Amino acid sequence: MSFPSALPLSDVRFEHGFLADRARCVRETSLPRQWDALNDRIPGAERSGCVHNVQVAAGEKPGEFHGLFWQDSDLAKWIEAASYRLAAAPDPALERELDGIIASLAKAQGPDGYLNTYFQLVEPGNRWANLRDAHELYVAGHLIEAGIAHFEATGKRSLLDVVIRLADLVARTFGRGPGQRRGYCGHEEIELALVKLARATGEARFLDLAAYFVDERGQSPNYFEAEARQRGDEKLPWHMHHDGLATLQAATPVRTLTEPVGHAVRMMYLLAAMADLARERPESGLGGACDRLWHAILGRHVYVTGGVGSEPYGEKFCEPFDLPPDRAYAETCAAIGVMMAARRMLERRREGATADAMERALYNNVLAGLSLDGTTYFYVNPLEVIPAVTRRRFECHLVKTQRVPWFGCACCPPNVARLLMSLGYYAYGREADGLTVHLYAGGRVRFVAGGTEVRMAVQTDYPWEETVTFSVAPASPVSFSLRLRVPGWCRSAKFTLNGEQVNVAIDSGYACLSRLWQAGDQVTLTLPMPVERVRADPRVAAVAGRVALQRGPIVYCLEEADHGPDLAALVLPSEAAVVARGDPGLLGGCVVLEAAGWRESERDRLYSTGPAPRRPATLRAVPYALWANRGEGEMRVWIRE
Amino acid sequence: MSFPSALPLSDVRFEHGFLADRARCVRETSLPRQWDALNDRIPGAERSGCVHNVQVAAGEKPGEFHGLFWQDSDLAKWIEAASYRLAAAPDPALERELDGIIASLAKAQGPDGYLNTYFQLVEPGNRWANLRDAHELYVAGHLIEAGIAHFEATGKRSLLDVVIRLADLVARTFGRGPGQRRGYCGHEEIELALVKLARATGEARFLDLAAYFVDERGQSPNYFEAEARQRGDEKLPWHMHHDGLATLQAATPVRTLTEPVGHAVRMMYLLAAMADLARERPESGLGGACDRLWHAILGRHVYVTGGVGSEPYGEKFCEPFDLPPDRAYAETCAAIGVMMAARRMLERRREGATADAMERALYNNVLAGLSLDGTTYFYVNPLEVIPAVTRRRFECHLVKTQRVPWFGCACCPPNVARLLMSLGYYAYGREADGLTVHLYAGGRVRFVAGGTEVRMAVQTDYPWEETVTFSVAPASPVSFSLRLRVPGWCRSAKFTLNGEQVNVAIDSGYACLSRLWQAGDQVTLTLPMPVERVRADPRVAAVAGRVALQRGPIVYCLEEADHGPDLAALVLPSEAAVVARGDPGLLGGCVVLEAAGWRESERDRLYSTGPAPRRPATLRAVPYALWANRGEGEMRVWIRE
Repeated sequence: MSFPSALPLSDVRFEHGFLADRARCVRETSLPRQWDALNDRIPGAERSGCVHNVQVAAGEKPGEFHGLFWQDSDLAKWIEAASYRLAAAPDPALERELDGIIASLAKAQGPDGYLNTYFQLVEPGNRWANLRDAHELYVAGHLIEAGIAHFEATGKRSLLDVVIRLADLVARTFGRGPGQRRGYCGHEEIELALVKLARATGEARFLDLAAYFVDERGQSPNYFEAEARQRGDEKLPWHMHHDGLATLQAATPVRTLTEPVGHAVRMMYLLAAMADLARERPESGLGGACDRLWHAILGRHVYVTGGVGSEPYGEKFCEPFDLPPDRAYAETCAAIGVMMAARRMLERRREGATADAMERALYNNVLAGLSLDGTTYFYVNPLEVIPAVTRRRFECHLVKTQRVPWFGCACCPPNVARLLMSLGYYAYGREADGLTVHLYAGGRVRFVAGGTEVRMAVQTDYPWEETVTFSVAPASPVSFSLRLRVPGWCRSAKFTLNGEQVNVAIDSGYACLSRLWQAGDQVTLTLPMPVERVRADPRVAAVAGRVALQRGPIVYCLEEADHGPDLAALVLPSEAAVVARGDPGLLGGCVVLEAAGWRESERDRLYSTGPAPRRPATLRAVPYALWANRGEGEMRVWIRE
Repeated sequence: MSFPSALPLSDVRFEHGFLADRARCVRETSLPRQWDALNDRIPGAERSGCVHNVQVAAGEKPGEFHGLFWQDSDLAKWIEAASYRLAAAPDPALERELDGIIASLAKAQGPDGYLNTYFQLVEPGNRWANLRDAHELYVAGHLIEAGIAHFEATGKRSLLDVVIRLADLVARTFGRGPGQRRGYCGHEEIELALVKLARATGEARFLDLAAYFVDERGQSPNYFEAEARQRGDEKLPWHMHHDGLATLQAATPVRTLTEPVGHAVRMMYLLAAMADLARERPESGLGGACDRLWHAILGRHVYVTGGVGSEPYGEKFCEPFDLPPDRAYAETCAAIGVMMAARRMLERRREGATADAMERALYNNVLAGLSLDGTTYFYVNPLEVIPAVTRRRFECHLVKTQRVPWFGCACCPPNVARLLMSLGYYAYGREADGLTVHLYAGGRVRFVAGGTEVRMAVQTDYPWEETVTFSVAPASPVSFSLRLRVPGWCRSAKFTLNGEQVNVAIDSGYACLSRLWQAGDQVTLTLPMPVERVRADPRVAAVAGRVALQRGPIVYCLEEADHGPDLAALVLPSEAAVVARGDPGLLGGCVVLEAAGWRESERDRLYSTGPAPRRPATLRAVPYALWANRGEGEMRVWIRE
């Protein structure tokens, strides 16, 4: 059994720059407020009920369950996020809160290991009876991830033991043995959690169980069909329209998939688990399916903001190239899923395009999920909004035009929190011969190479600035390879070593500097960031003839705050220079893009012949991730050219 | 009480050209096949049950009701269409069919005049209990229109007497008197039918009842709210999302409306009735509301194909300028509603823009509703289709990518039939001082001017050709005004009188030739039809930067049959000449448009920088009304420029 290449979070510090600021915002604002939300203490926000449910299930208070089948998962993700935060630095108050809720979870757990407050409080007789819809194993998966994170951060086994008992129950219940249920979850998550648990405990049986869940999925006779017949439940739920069981990636075995199908978060979580298993068990033959699906996603299904899932109904993947900007669902969780899958794909194979996809998702779709002040969230992330239209069109009724403090189904807020609290896992990869840097952010990192501890400081104002400086300080001189990612958007990366320009070969998107490193060595990477006009393949019908502006990894958008309404009237001439300009006072400090363009004038008739009258207009684009932080208004990523 | 300005259908003949061909197709194919459909005799088509329901209600056969609340209305519209057809020329077989079904309807009618097979067979205790949803008065309205058409075509009172009894029941039941219900129908239709009935019978009380229904609508306290409380029905149906009672134009009194709201067909039928009443009773103050709504529709809500209703959910009007081509609902019935309202607006005031809207709706959205062979129909008329995407997107699930023989809710097919069988009503207007021609079609017309019968032959291959020749033959020389519409799309109409070019003043879109006419007089109108590139106001965000091609009244589209898939990759250069060419072998003979353009090439990556590679491509556009007659494929009205 091999091990993941991520560094422990305690060995990675993000200290300055954009990502560090966003992470600090989560640490200082989002995490405490999410805890308030989970405790139903935010006036006006949708009620969570999470903590309440656990306390009721633990017998600590009277009351009724509140929320959805999978309500516990919000709490589990928050525990995971809070644990990652503890891994970075001690916080006794937070640790006490965690101890308290973990004690309640332990009390709530049944003697057989079962733990799910919905089924314990509402339908105790119906455990495991509706795997298709009820997300029981999904919730278990998130609890398992939380237990591992808490253990790794604190060394305490309090939650880890709870989730091992739960995982043992799952292992006894599901499988191909006599008396076992041959089922799997309608919402993937437990698979990747079990791989983590196997790695954390060294117990291969959890890997076996993860492999069982992945392998059994979509086999014939179909478990979900049999289960539905047993329930007398003949009608498929509405979100399964058109795709049926493919909504759950369960119409056919996963190895047969060549295009992503169904619910986007589920697809990405499944792909993450498949990549894990492909790495752990290369003989499983899952690697080929992973690669096919991943390249299908990158080639035909991902938004320019890095998100996936363009069908609001059922939060699903749609047809190849069907990526309308206004109806982008692009759930925050799905973009996080892209990052989770990408990270695991990178653990199988260094491939620049994979890291590019991870970075694109992070800097655009994922970060758009969180307000600048860390208090409100987007679930759905369209690339084009006209508020009045969005509010009244039925197919946009899940889109919010402004971020909100919480959701009835609040999967995204704690998912953003755990992602930003665990960025270290995504930024660095440990390799047999050294360290790989996937994402650039100012701070410090510690790792062992050739048996020697190496400390490395990273100085950069990426993604706004082009240079990243690495100051390498091994405890004693040591040979290792430092691999630096050269993003796909960068055509002329430059390197200096101790002030001297050096040529470095780039292989699959990574530059490899192998040498005997000694304290004081300094590498500077320069990634020129001209403003790029990005065009989609013309098969993306909805944005044909339009461009998106990108600089470095940042995708830009126009906002009503800078232009007034009717952004569709703005045209960026194909010959216009687009200039980048740092604006320290805007949106927490960022680089904006400006160009001389036109605004088409309103006509006196709805339809006219003759050329459209127009007047000069300055176009000003701001980072998509930061949109909707200046009040409600129109927004548009794809600009007419 | 004044009278409508339409000529009797028996005095109008369409004999040659495009409209005559389409009408012949309805007469010879659609009408008989629709009768088969209503009798459930078309294998594979959705079941109608209409005739069956009437026969069961009449006690002529056993059985159960089939279909929707308003199923009878399909039959009523067919009877109306068949009657118009009889008005044009005798057809004893058809007349016998009509006599038969009318006898059944008379037998089905209750002793108090009630007639609605759904309520008679399924919910006899719930008459008038759910005016909001159950369409009882809507069905009554269509029966009334059928009764009048049948009487006017045949002179027989068999159905007219049935519907007068029904109207009398309605008049006894509804109103502001003691013991009356102060209600009105959730789906407008009876209002305009009652105006017709008042005109046909000369009985002002039916006009009073129509005025009551229009005036009472949306008054406070709201009837539908009270009615729902009485039913214990608290939840609004899904199609009323966002708009609530405005879905039914019932949130506020109709005189307060400044933008069209709610269900598009209902809005147009209401507007038609309002225009009727504004004309009949100028003192009602409805004229101002009519004008405001009509100009709001033309200025902010109509598709370039002449249809209305851009929200599929609830078949509704959406925000101003929100006219996405792929999600156009643009129901065939709503475009017919545009024509119905336009005709009535023209009876109030000759206004070229109104006739333009009527013509645009007819030649594009309405005619697209019917296949070239007259056997299949569109209900929804998008301006852009990618079949695979349309089939899988939930918000497009009501769109068919190919016309079908019948619908479960089959309002559109008989509506197209009655429209095309009554085109004479729309083409000509009788005026105190002569005749006005609104629509040009080859044939003959007969009218009385100054007490003298005038026969006029119209020779034209409009809309493909530019000239229309009128040969005027009064029984004896007589002075009158012949007003000829000069379409808004035409900038340089030319006139000759007996071969000599004449200058004719054009007022509000109509040229007026007033003289002493004598047999042999000939007027030739030439309407130059250059190909126009039509651009929408830039507030129509969905098509900003694109053009629609139009020649004369015909709006064009690209089809996959001519270009292969990925029509979004096709670009029409702004400087390219677009050439019109008659193609007698194509789609029944039509004019196609051709231009040298480009096709952008597929890229090897989903997103690329650098200019899009492209290759020359011939763009070939066909009339939108004739799309989807060559197999399934992509279609696109708005072309990249």
